[in-house]
Amino acid sequence: MPHIELPEGVPGIGSGFMFRPETAKPMRELAEVLLRGDNTLSRGERELIAAYVSNLNDCMFCQASHSSFAALQLAGGMSVVEQVKRDPASAPISDKLRALLAIAASVQQSGKLVTPEDVEAARAEGATDVEIHDTVLIAAAFSMFNRYVDGLATFTPTDPELYDEMAVEIVENGYVRR
Amino acid sequence: MPHIELPEGVPGIGSGFMFRPETAKPMRELAEVLLRGDNTLSRGERELIAAYVSNLNDCMFCQASHSSFAALQLAGGMSVVEQVKRDPASAPISDKLRALLAIAASVQQSGKLVTPEDVEAARAEGATDVEIHDTVLIAAAFSMFNRYVDGLATFTPTDPELYDEMAVEIVENGYVRR
Repeated sequence: MPHIELPEGVPGIGSGFMFRPETAKPMRELAEVLLRGDNTLSRGERELIAAYVSNLNDCMFCQASHSSFAALQLAGGMSVVEQVKRDPASAPISDKLRALLAIAASVQQSGKLVTPEDVEAARAEGATDVEIHDTVLIAAAFSMFNRYVDGLATFTPTDPELYDEMAVEIVENGYVRR
Repeated sequence: MPHIELPEGVPGIGSGFMFRPETAKPMRELAEVLLRGDNTLSRGERELIAAYVSNLNDCMFCQASHSSFAALQLAGGMSVVEQVKRDPASAPISDKLRALLAIAASVQQSGKLVTPEDVEAARAEGATDVEIHDTVLIAAAFSMFNRYVDGLATFTPTDPELYDEMAVEIVENGYVRR
C-alpha cells in the first residue's frame, strides 16, 4: 500500500505524477529530453541504460517499464535487455555502449566512483562528451525516479502485458502530457 | 579536473547546466518547484533537507551550497544547519522536521527503506501527505543532483564566501534563469 493517498490503481510513477502535477511537469520533461530528444545515442540505447540502472536499484516498476521501452526500440528486443541486466560484459551490444554502461553502474552507487579511466575507456570506443554527459545524467536521474517510485511505495503491477502496453504508448507519444 | 570539457571556472552544477541547456531547463524548474514553490514547509526547511541529503551523499559542492541557502532562510542560520548535519536527533528543529529528515535519510539509501512506521511517525507530528511526498522527492532529486555534480567531476570552489554569494543570488532570483 502506498505511504500516502495516491490515486488508486494507477501504476508506479504515474500515481506520484497525478498526486503532484507541479513536480510531474519538469520530471516528465527531463525524461523526454534525456531519453527521446535529439541524440547520437538511439532511444533504445538510452532506455537500456535506464533499465540497467533501475535494475541495479532493484526498482521493480522502473526496471520492468524501461526494459519494455528499451526492448521495443532496440534491435534484438527483450533478449538483449535481459542479457545486459544479467551481464553487460558478455551482452551483444557495442563496445561503446558497454563502456557507457560501466560509467552508469558507477554513478548508480556514487558520482565519485566514476574514474578518468572509465571515461577514457568510453572515449576510446568513440563516445563523445555529450554521450558521456547524458549517460551520467540518465544514471543520476534514475537514481531519483527509482527512489521516488519506491519511497512512496507506489502500486507495482505484475502483469507483463501492462508494461508492453505502456511501451507502445511511450514510443508513440513520449513522456510529456500536453 | 572535470571528466568532459565543461566551461572553465564555472562552479559545480552550473557548468553541467551551461554544457547542456536542454537538460538544465527541467532540472532548474524541478529545483524551483520543490525548494521554492508554494508549500507549508518553509524554503529554509526544504533547503535544509537538501543540504542534509547532499551531506549524506558527501557531495561537497551541493552540501556547501544548499547549507548556505538553508542558513540564509532559516531561523538560527548556519549553526542549526551544522547541528542537523552532525546529529538531527539533537538539533534544535521541530519534531515534524526531524521525522521528515528520517524519511529523507532512508530515501538517500533506497526508496525501499522508507517504512510505514517512518511515515506514521511524521504524520503523528503533523506532517501532511504533500509534505511527506515532497520530502521523498527532495531526497530523491538530490540523489540525482549529487550524482550529476560528482559524476562529471565538476569544479568545487573551497572559498566559503562564494557559497554565501550564491545564496544571496538564489534567495533573490531562484533557480530558473529567464
